[in-house]
Amino acid sequence: MEHSITFTGENIDAKVKVSTNTLLADAAHDAGIDIGQPCGGQGRCGRCAVQVTSGDVRRRSTLRLSLDDIAQGYALACQTVVEGDVAIYIPPQEKIERRLTTDRVVAEVSVPSDYEYPFTQSVRRMHLTLTPPSMDDQTDDWSRTQTAFRLQHRMEQIVCSVGLLRKMGEVLREKDWRVTAIIETGNLEEGHPTRLIDLRAGHEDEYAPLWGCAVDIGTTTVTLWLVDLVTGQVKAQVAEYNGQISRGEDVVSRIIYAAKKSGGDELRQRVLDTINGLLELACKRVKLPEGNLTPEQLVKATIAGNSTMMHLLLGIPASNIRLSPFITAVNQPPTSTAREVGLNISPEAVVDCLPGVASYVGADITAGVLSSGLDNAENVTLFLDVGTNGETVLGNRDWLVTCACSAGPAFEGAGVVNGMRATTGAIEEVWINSETLEPTYRVIGGGKPKGICGSGLISLLSEAFLTGILDKGGNVNLTAGSSRVREGAHGGEYVVAWGAETESGEDIVITRVDIDNLLRAKAAIYAGFTVLAENVGIPLETTDKVLVGGSFGKYINVEKAVQIGLLPDMEWNRFEFLGNTSVKGAYYALLDWRKRERISEIAKRMTYIELSADNSFYDAFTSALFLPHTDLRRFPSVESALGKV
Amino acid sequence: MEHSITFTGENIDAKVKVSTNTLLADAAHDAGIDIGQPCGGQGRCGRCAVQVTSGDVRRRSTLRLSLDDIAQGYALACQTVVEGDVAIYIPPQEKIERRLTTDRVVAEVSVPSDYEYPFTQSVRRMHLTLTPPSMDDQTDDWSRTQTAFRLQHRMEQIVCSVGLLRKMGEVLREKDWRVTAIIETGNLEEGHPTRLIDLRAGHEDEYAPLWGCAVDIGTTTVTLWLVDLVTGQVKAQVAEYNGQISRGEDVVSRIIYAAKKSGGDELRQRVLDTINGLLELACKRVKLPEGNLTPEQLVKATIAGNSTMMHLLLGIPASNIRLSPFITAVNQPPTSTAREVGLNISPEAVVDCLPGVASYVGADITAGVLSSGLDNAENVTLFLDVGTNGETVLGNRDWLVTCACSAGPAFEGAGVVNGMRATTGAIEEVWINSETLEPTYRVIGGGKPKGICGSGLISLLSEAFLTGILDKGGNVNLTAGSSRVREGAHGGEYVVAWGAETESGEDIVITRVDIDNLLRAKAAIYAGFTVLAENVGIPLETTDKVLVGGSFGKYINVEKAVQIGLLPDMEWNRFEFLGNTSVKGAYYALLDWRKRERISEIAKRMTYIELSADNSFYDAFTSALFLPHTDLRRFPSVESALGKV
Repeated sequence: MEHSITFTGENIDAKVKVSTNTLLADAAHDAGIDIGQPCGGQGRCGRCAVQVTSGDVRRRSTLRLSLDDIAQGYALACQTVVEGDVAIYIPPQEKIERRLTTDRVVAEVSVPSDYEYPFTQSVRRMHLTLTPPSMDDQTDDWSRTQTAFRLQHRMEQIVCSVGLLRKMGEVLREKDWRVTAIIETGNLEEGHPTRLIDLRAGHEDEYAPLWGCAVDIGTTTVTLWLVDLVTGQVKAQVAEYNGQISRGEDVVSRIIYAAKKSGGDELRQRVLDTINGLLELACKRVKLPEGNLTPEQLVKATIAGNSTMMHLLLGIPASNIRLSPFITAVNQPPTSTAREVGLNISPEAVVDCLPGVASYVGADITAGVLSSGLDNAENVTLFLDVGTNGETVLGNRDWLVTCACSAGPAFEGAGVVNGMRATTGAIEEVWINSETLEPTYRVIGGGKPKGICGSGLISLLSEAFLTGILDKGGNVNLTAGSSRVREGAHGGEYVVAWGAETESGEDIVITRVDIDNLLRAKAAIYAGFTVLAENVGIPLETTDKVLVGGSFGKYINVEKAVQIGLLPDMEWNRFEFLGNTSVKGAYYALLDWRKRERISEIAKRMTYIELSADNSFYDAFTSALFLPHTDLRRFPSVESALGKV
Repeated sequence: MEHSITFTGENIDAKVKVSTNTLLADAAHDAGIDIGQPCGGQGRCGRCAVQVTSGDVRRRSTLRLSLDDIAQGYALACQTVVEGDVAIYIPPQEKIERRLTTDRVVAEVSVPSDYEYPFTQSVRRMHLTLTPPSMDDQTDDWSRTQTAFRLQHRMEQIVCSVGLLRKMGEVLREKDWRVTAIIETGNLEEGHPTRLIDLRAGHEDEYAPLWGCAVDIGTTTVTLWLVDLVTGQVKAQVAEYNGQISRGEDVVSRIIYAAKKSGGDELRQRVLDTINGLLELACKRVKLPEGNLTPEQLVKATIAGNSTMMHLLLGIPASNIRLSPFITAVNQPPTSTAREVGLNISPEAVVDCLPGVASYVGADITAGVLSSGLDNAENVTLFLDVGTNGETVLGNRDWLVTCACSAGPAFEGAGVVNGMRATTGAIEEVWINSETLEPTYRVIGGGKPKGICGSGLISLLSEAFLTGILDKGGNVNLTAGSSRVREGAHGGEYVVAWGAETESGEDIVITRVDIDNLLRAKAAIYAGFTVLAENVGIPLETTDKVLVGGSFGKYINVEKAVQIGLLPDMEWNRFEFLGNTSVKGAYYALLDWRKRERISEIAKRMTYIELSADNSFYDAFTSALFLPHTDLRRFPSVESALGKV
């Protein structure tokens, strides 16, 4: 039976017809209304609640709704089906504020000294000068082009797409049969012939820029570097929240959402929109004599990201990633073209999705191992990638073992009430006076604070713990004796900045729920590397170095990170903070085919240890859900700091 | 400036807004109204005339419109631009009646005795049994599949598309990790790796049918054979007018139309619609235990057609084909996939567009030479392909020369008032009593006549000439003394069937305009082979055999074809009528990779002679614009027949 569903709300006035038992979320989707589902539509987060003002619905689950909510007509859109004509009020949706900025993305990166275009770059340009056709030589355009490749460059067997044939006739004739070919050199042993990527009228300057990009698709943040493939220089660095966040905050929620009706297509489009938006933004930063650079001029993209992100980008079902025995469809996606993938760069541009190792150790880690240098380390080294997934690799140039755990997006500022990315307006460090419990803080850019980023959250947690605002269980001590410590809507909270000081005029706080999310995140990461080290029988203390990657990794305060029990208690000079190691690895692979092959070798060499099959992980995780840990002896420096307070 | 254009007519009531100087044809297109443009929008045929009932337009050309027409407001939609708000009446459009049928397409074809599946077929099935994954073996799906290829079939380096990865996970698990892979074996020397085409759950019977199709895209008619690649048997044969006809009756008109705004996209879609329609029709003819065959089950398509048809199918601009020095973009299109081309068969199915030789000698001819056996002939042989383009090949197993000329679609029943394809209801042969001038005729299927097909037109022309209804210039003798000979709307005409006898109730006639079209068609073909023979210095009489291909070729009456001067006057037993040699060649190439390679060799070996650069062609053409020819000594048998009448 068909029912009429009416939606109202701020700027919302829509009507759709749907059949009995249609989910409210699907009906809203059909009506073009965007309802956030950070848990991926599992009925767990409660953030898709809408108000049924008239008509019959059936609630499959009311988790996260109070009896009072239900009495007022609230229902979870992802768990409620229609049973008749219904009128729905959509409350204002939580917005993930989008701040397109490079403020803190900027990583210092120098062109590798051994990069030598075109010898170590698989994409290059070639000048061709064709003999014009005549009544005595009626060879077709493509054969004529192939002859020029053969006679002028000794190149045979070049593959050309139908798409390029569509423009070939015009391009060849535009500048009197002189053209610049952009080609990707192939590897016949691996079944990859040399391929024509683009054909451009006239002879371009041989050393003019040839554009490409390195991309890291994080569960929470997507980072893109725009690169001149000729000089190897990075010309722009941009980042943005992954547009999929409103459909699931972690990979498991995304996988669940992707398995819903047209969910996979939607997630694919959302991340493509994010990347294509970043491409536009990055290109605007590059002024050329003939105007701004445009994305269509890019001829190569190298992409890193965890296995789920890679599957969702390519539209490949990811369900088996989360079901035992946790199998990806593909760890080494085939090299494909921008047209196939859906990137708005040159249609036949190479899109190289880097290889991963397993369901929860993806190309972000293989790229990270490369860029961190772990694969060449003489001594045993620990590499941590602190992101929404916490991955750990332990090893040296002879062996590599790896494991992963789901940390959640708290350290990237998502899933925390006043969380934000490390950009202008973010509180990046906090100090609390142990007497008055009054905080001082530092804001990126120096203006009024808008929220707290990952490093700010770490230092806040540490300070609040050391000053007794939080106990070791993370509970807020409401009797601490400061108006900043108070009972909020979600339990105890601490006010970091009063509304009078902030950009929005609202108090910036950290709540009990935020603290739980942060504790779970740090406990997962800590449990990951400790269990891994135990597994291979290497005491953590004996590791030579701890390399820390992650989009916030470069600005972390080691002392504070140790104090909350995120990092092991070691001499600070053994830590190295590397920033986004994933995009950096993608950048190396984009430039240099030898580095690209090295990543494939790294992927083959890494031994993956599945933590979900391991009870010791769960034990380690629960023990680490404290500040800094149930076992304080593991953190002697914290023990002594607590003694001093 | 924006103007409002209103369209009315039978079942037409539309309005669009367009800017000043928009063509009426484009405005109608925007309004979703289909106005036929058989000349491709050149203002030559006059068939897109519409009536301007109010408002200002500017007529760039009024060719084909009388002063009276213009006074009544008629204007050519392809030559008239709007200059203000305009109201347009669309007269009823000429319809090319579509008769989806196989009645006369059916060609007797036997499976070549040397076809041996799978050894000579490049597409084959393979059974794979994968080791299911476990916590101890978390290899990804695609690597697991590759391992099975390696261990069970010793096959390495198979290329898999992202599209197949999207369904791989589900297919592998559906029947417990037992799958049937459909692969195309590659040729690494030519840069083609082995490719996975499809993956199906379970182990299919090794000798169950594997479906493919051979297609001939004619300018006028598209023919498709549905083939079981395992047995080689043809399971259905279907044909249909090419949906592009209403946008140009010959290749030159199509090329001109394709160069207009979105014209190329439209023509591409039209021929795809035709082929996809034929696929549906052919599949319906095949009953399987589980229901009808569906196009999605086809894994290979081999396509022949002239160079323009091939360019338009692939969306490649064809303009340079008609501009001196007449250059194609590509003679050997890259092997591609159904997804790329737009065929509704299995998305990764092989689509093999056969190679052509030059702008006007395409894959229809290389395929025709193969299937006619000309390339293996001991003695010098003439091969004619009688279609909208008339192509001629002269040669033997040692050499091949070829030329082409534009004959027009008259012999395929298009461009002739009562013309139709050779199918049920078509008059296929006519006899005229020399005393009474009364005709008798034979109708395909035996019922009431609907029109006249190619063989009927040839015999009608010949009989009318021999009985004096037509003079040698093709003029209708209005004083012949029969009510069947009369003045019609377009000059003299002869009534073949009175309305009382016909399916539609209207008279079936042949008009002066029809006769002109037929004379031009036969003169072009005749001039083609005579000039070619002269060019290589081989007297036509010395050729051992004349092989005649063409969709009507099998039903032609040699005597009549000689009498109108279409075929040379030689002993009848030296003619062989082969039917559609193009689709037959595509069929051989579909089955057998050795035949496919042979076609590439034929394309390389053929020497193309450009007639447009040759004045002798024009002389030969004008001399042949008579019945049978200005020089009656070339047709001694006709001379003697005329003596007998």
